[in-house]
Amino acid sequence: MPKHEKFLNSLLVKRVAVNIKRLRLEKHLSQEELATLSGYHRTYVGSIERSERNITLTTLETIAKALQIEASELLKE
Amino acid sequence: MPKHEKFLNSLLVKRVAVNIKRLRLEKHLSQEELATLSGYHRTYVGSIERSERNITLTTLETIAKALQIEASELLKE
Repeated sequence: MPKHEKFLNSLLVKRVAVNIKRLRLEKHLSQEELATLSGYHRTYVGSIERSERNITLTTLETIAKALQIEASELLKE
Repeated sequence: MPKHEKFLNSLLVKRVAVNIKRLRLEKHLSQEELATLSGYHRTYVGSIERSERNITLTTLETIAKALQIEASELLKE
């Protein structure tokens, strides 16, 4: 089992993944552009958007800043 | 430097810590009761409330369920 599969059952991990992708596209940013803005690698941003990462609060904060939104927006349904 | 000190600069880690404590007290729960409800150790809940832990989305989700609230509530200012 890939190490990320256990997170597929987390509704919150899925919701954050969907929200990041949706908000990134609303701002007309590519994964690579969001990666540059947040200081992460493009493949890492991709894995977050595929719900493969159980990210921490500081990572969530960094991505929210890069998207210029409140972190709580990323958790909303 | 204790390993948690780097998180003290994270506004989001601090905000979540304050919110968990506030909502726990509003529900008249002790740290020990919240720990039991969420399946964590009392000392771990204490360290989260002291902003010493950079918790993940699944931990946030577990605590929100134990407090019977939406996870996004824990990130609000």
